[in-house]
Amino acid sequence: MSEYRGFELLGTDGAARTGKLYLTHGEVETPIFMPVGTQGTVKTLSPHELKDIGAQIILGNTYHLYLRPGHKLIAEMGGLHTFSSWDRPILTDSGGFQVFSHLGLNKITEEGVFFRSHIDGSRHFLTPELSMEIQNALGSDIMMAFDECVPYPAEHGYVAQSVERTTRWAKRCKEAHKKNEEQLLFGIVQGGVYADLRAESASRIREIGFPGYALGGLSVGEPKELMHEMLECTVPLLPEHKARYLMGVGTPVDLVEGVYRGIDMFDCVMPTRNGRNGMIFTWDGPLNIKNAEFSRDSRPPETDCSCYVCRNFSRAYLRHLYKAGEILALRLNSYHNLHFYLTLMESVRRAIREKRYEAFRQEFLLRYQGR
Amino acid sequence: MSEYRGFELLGTDGAARTGKLYLTHGEVETPIFMPVGTQGTVKTLSPHELKDIGAQIILGNTYHLYLRPGHKLIAEMGGLHTFSSWDRPILTDSGGFQVFSHLGLNKITEEGVFFRSHIDGSRHFLTPELSMEIQNALGSDIMMAFDECVPYPAEHGYVAQSVERTTRWAKRCKEAHKKNEEQLLFGIVQGGVYADLRAESASRIREIGFPGYALGGLSVGEPKELMHEMLECTVPLLPEHKARYLMGVGTPVDLVEGVYRGIDMFDCVMPTRNGRNGMIFTWDGPLNIKNAEFSRDSRPPETDCSCYVCRNFSRAYLRHLYKAGEILALRLNSYHNLHFYLTLMESVRRAIREKRYEAFRQEFLLRYQGR
Repeated sequence: MSEYRGFELLGTDGAARTGKLYLTHGEVETPIFMPVGTQGTVKTLSPHELKDIGAQIILGNTYHLYLRPGHKLIAEMGGLHTFSSWDRPILTDSGGFQVFSHLGLNKITEEGVFFRSHIDGSRHFLTPELSMEIQNALGSDIMMAFDECVPYPAEHGYVAQSVERTTRWAKRCKEAHKKNEEQLLFGIVQGGVYADLRAESASRIREIGFPGYALGGLSVGEPKELMHEMLECTVPLLPEHKARYLMGVGTPVDLVEGVYRGIDMFDCVMPTRNGRNGMIFTWDGPLNIKNAEFSRDSRPPETDCSCYVCRNFSRAYLRHLYKAGEILALRLNSYHNLHFYLTLMESVRRAIREKRYEAFRQEFLLRYQGR
Repeated sequence: MSEYRGFELLGTDGAARTGKLYLTHGEVETPIFMPVGTQGTVKTLSPHELKDIGAQIILGNTYHLYLRPGHKLIAEMGGLHTFSSWDRPILTDSGGFQVFSHLGLNKITEEGVFFRSHIDGSRHFLTPELSMEIQNALGSDIMMAFDECVPYPAEHGYVAQSVERTTRWAKRCKEAHKKNEEQLLFGIVQGGVYADLRAESASRIREIGFPGYALGGLSVGEPKELMHEMLECTVPLLPEHKARYLMGVGTPVDLVEGVYRGIDMFDCVMPTRNGRNGMIFTWDGPLNIKNAEFSRDSRPPETDCSCYVCRNFSRAYLRHLYKAGEILALRLNSYHNLHFYLTLMESVRRAIREKRYEAFRQEFLLRYQGR
């Protein structure tokens, strides 16, 4: 393991880039998709399977782990890596997204956010400092600054104020983060769907200085074109030699389009959540495995796919498992979908290295049905 | 693969025996425990994992597979082995147990049993002939005769009549079973908790002649002593050189006690169902992983256990997963529990081979807390 921790830019093809993250628990090739392990596990899957699929880094949710089983318990058990038996890199979010998703119940102050636990209704107060304390206790390789996530749509005036607060909170996060070299702290650019506020936020967060930058508050209901616009106006304002992370995104098309606009990192619950709802991703678009058309379909979910599911099971069997309410259905769908996402990113990296990303993108968009 | 299909007695130690089943999809060492794959999958687990754990043969439920997805569909898809991607032996039950479990709704005639589907309430009529047709379509290695399962308690007079019917049905099953050599058909001895009726049934079923014999209608609520009595009076009446299968049994202690009385084969949902309810089996007895005492317990479920779960996870983590409602909890508990059952049977076989089964049994009963 190199002593250097951070991002190395390896190559570009238009705005698309390949690179490498050097982290405490290993190296990560970018562009990368990070499976989401909300409560200390990527839902339905074992760490062993995640490695089989080729996961290089997974995400943990600060909000969930703080409430249950608690960051102090996890620290006592040796940190999140040891606790969950995952020895590759972990990125933790700040907890902000979850508390802001239920703002009706919660209250923002300059100091932080009051919120109620979704588990037992107990009251909590999350601040930039507490978010850092929790993420330090979890021991993730990459921590995220505690920011305000503004819903869509929101007024320009409100978003402007929020950008100011996110900047002040980002400073407090950097201050509060223990200066251990094991954990990188990434800053987050907000600004809703307003180009001027994105530029303002990028400039302010960049001034503070972080080893990586995320774009928050996108893919929250705004039209795709607006998301692309925001990427196009914000990404060029970020330092070339730092990692760029588009939070909570997205569909396979979103990933291909995000990379096209210079993004290095993604995370999303879609492959696992949609898998649990019976959706199976393929290069031709998603299948709804519940459909009667698959009841006697002896083909694997995806022809030419090398994953365990496609090597062993038919659509007919997967449909049967799903209709019968078998947990194995949720596992197999999640497994294949994450394999699909990670294989897609591998193809993306190869296409960039071979300087044919635009052709790859065009071909992908032509073949993939469903956005 | 040998051309011979059937049972070979390899050794004895008191009434306990070791042997081997030669089946179309492979050989099975006895005494054996068979994980239950009700709907074409052992709940929560993949076929790959079942092999990791050392499963040699699994069970499929005729009732469930007939109703969903239907035996004809499974036959079209190449049979149950191909459909579920399990290439080792499968035993199918007759469907009788499930239809008799809901007798309030169902109706027995000499011809067969009317029942309503638990899925959609549709009416069906299961006969010995249909049970054979379904099991032939599924393509199991061992098929079971369609018998009447009498609840406990039941009057002597009723059980006597039922034994007669089970005998007539057994004849019809043998008659209806396609004479393919790939599928062995086992007979079932009934007789409730009445020694004279068990003897009568054993004699009548033996007269018909099968390559293996099961004991049905035990572990249905009767006291353990009565079950042991029934084994002690019935097993000696069965042919020495045929396999003996105690259906739907049981706890780890039941297995050890069954082998002690000459049983070769067992099946039960307990390791998987109880696992899904938070019970983890160990050589010292079961743990309830939900208990607060495990919240900071960094030990594996079982010290000295070589299974994937025990090599990777702590009780604290398993408790967290369970409390958080994570599917991985159900998987890991089921995995460890089946590994425990199969390892127990491996130890049982070794003890018999080494002619120290009585000592093994005494030691096990002393150490294992909880029946």
